[in-house]
Amino acid sequence: MAQLTLEERYDEKVAAHMLEFGNQMPGLQQYLGVSLVRIEAGRLWAEADLSSQEPTPSGNLHGGVIAAVLDHVTGAVVYPVIPAGHWGATTELKINYLAPVAPGLLRAEASVLGMTKRSAVVRGEAYVGDRLVAAAQGTITIVAPRVTQAVSS
Amino acid sequence: MAQLTLEERYDEKVAAHMLEFGNQMPGLQQYLGVSLVRIEAGRLWAEADLSSQEPTPSGNLHGGVIAAVLDHVTGAVVYPVIPAGHWGATTELKINYLAPVAPGLLRAEASVLGMTKRSAVVRGEAYVGDRLVAAAQGTITIVAPRVTQAVSS
Amino acid sequence: MAQLTLEERYDEKVAAHMLEFGNQMPGLQQYLGVSLVRIEAGRLWAEADLSSQEPTPSGNLHGGVIAAVLDHVTGAVVYPVIPAGHWGATTELKINYLAPVAPGLLRAEASVLGMTKRSAVVRGEAYVGDRLVAAAQGTITIVAPRVTQAVSS
Amino acid sequence: MAQLTLEERYDEKVAAHMLEFGNQMPGLQQYLGVSLVRIEAGRLWAEADLSSQEPTPSGNLHGGVIAAVLDHVTGAVVYPVIPAGHWGATTELKINYLAPVAPGLLRAEASVLGMTKRSAVVRGEAYVGDRLVAAAQGTITIVAPRVTQAVSS
Repeated sequence: MAQLTLEERYDEKVAAHMLEFGNQMPGLQQYLGVSLVRIEAGRLWAEADLSSQEPTPSGNLHGGVIAAVLDHVTGAVVYPVIPAGHWGATTELKINYLAPVAPGLLRAEASVLGMTKRSAVVRGEAYVGDRLVAAAQGTITIVAPRVTQAVSS
Repeated sequence: MAQLTLEERYDEKVAAHMLEFGNQMPGLQQYLGVSLVRIEAGRLWAEADLSSQEPTPSGNLHGGVIAAVLDHVTGAVVYPVIPAGHWGATTELKINYLAPVAPGLLRAEASVLGMTKRSAVVRGEAYVGDRLVAAAQGTITIVAPRVTQAVSS
Repeated sequence: MAQLTLEERYDEKVAAHMLEFGNQMPGLQQYLGVSLVRIEAGRLWAEADLSSQEPTPSGNLHGGVIAAVLDHVTGAVVYPVIPAGHWGATTELKINYLAPVAPGLLRAEASVLGMTKRSAVVRGEAYVGDRLVAAAQGTITIVAPRVTQAVSS
Repeated sequence: MAQLTLEERYDEKVAAHMLEFGNQMPGLQQYLGVSLVRIEAGRLWAEADLSSQEPTPSGNLHGGVIAAVLDHVTGAVVYPVIPAGHWGATTELKINYLAPVAPGLLRAEASVLGMTKRSAVVRGEAYVGDRLVAAAQGTITIVAPRVTQAVSS
């Protein structure tokens, strides 16, 4: 049985909703100042205003801040390509940090490398200007509504 | 040339200083409510009070919050075993999420699996009660003072 | 619903069968000279005779050989704790190499950190003598018999 | 100090040498049937003839075989962009498997995401036909000649 393509799975209403309302959620996203700026089938672009983040003693952002931004965008990219009402749970994520990042504006991109009904493999990149400063690769488990179970099940 | 053991590298003054002052730093650590509670040579125990964190629509903590706590403790565990004044830059970190985590108290542990002068391989675990909810493995690059260079160099 | 413990899932007949016959399989395992030597619920110990492996120009084993051994043991450790007839498909694996390894005897250990019906999070370590030379962490997807689907589904 | 670009680092003689002689090395590469087919600055394409590999009982290739191919190409891609005589040691590698792979021809690509004098962050992909079947991300440590030290130092 052939897998659906990302274009076949893509629900542009979900994407439009995310761009309109997804940037107003409280919690970590607000703390990070993440705004989604563009969405396509299996791709997503965002910006994080990290200018007011307290640097570590080295003068750079805490790696955990970059990790959280990449966790956020690699999780968000699956929503327009999964059935409405389902949610995506990050099962695992690996991040390589390529350069220290000072407080300021961070751009982030995410893409879906491949997916089935149950999971998606995703990549994410974070940039300062045109310089790649962090790269991520991970797995998102797709969870049906009202199922209470472990993330990795 | 034999590598130094973690016990030979261990500086208990640094550890005592971290336990006394390290929990008062502003920024991400404060946002996460992370407190270091115990340190040994190459091992570290912490708690994060995530009870006031806003849950995602699924009712669970944003994975980025767990990622940030694990990034923090796996980075911190190297300080008592590297020369004073040096700092540890997370080069890469991989996290597996084993179960969803509701807002509340998270315990975290970190350990050094092996190290040289230039880098350390570390592991981290996050627990709710006795249940392992996330596991991390990564690399910390050890950077000498006043060297301005890329994290991964 | 409570998860079964590893002890409750453990089928010692499967473990005994693996120790008796699992070391006679052709293919990669034979090429690597891997022998399972001990199995407990969620834990496994093995040895790989890499003494006849061709070293790279640096005089050390190709990292891919170590990767393959760790892939093998982290995949094998789940069989005694999943239903008979099911199989474990490695969904993702991350390996840190801590030291170069010359051709010779490699010991490997694997353990299950946590599992559900559908997947297990595993760790693996490779040793030369008592020295940890590589550490792995990954996810095994548990696949029911006769289901033809993507590994990561 | 600005980092050199991949084009500035690129030594086409090394690349030509790899294409001419690199495919005749004994050991794991021969076992895997890997042939480098094209090299650019920071990019590399290869093929692995896995048609004679023994499948596992599931009928698919052992994941360790795919891991070894990806380890090989992500390690090889750095040679034309590091100083002659230096070598690249894989410090860590993470692989996501997107689909089971039957014995046959595997294409593999590798690219350098970023690098400094001391290390490179690399990505790799494996394809069957046009289908992405595995994706890797990792770190290569660049080691100067005659330095005897741990891989991760």
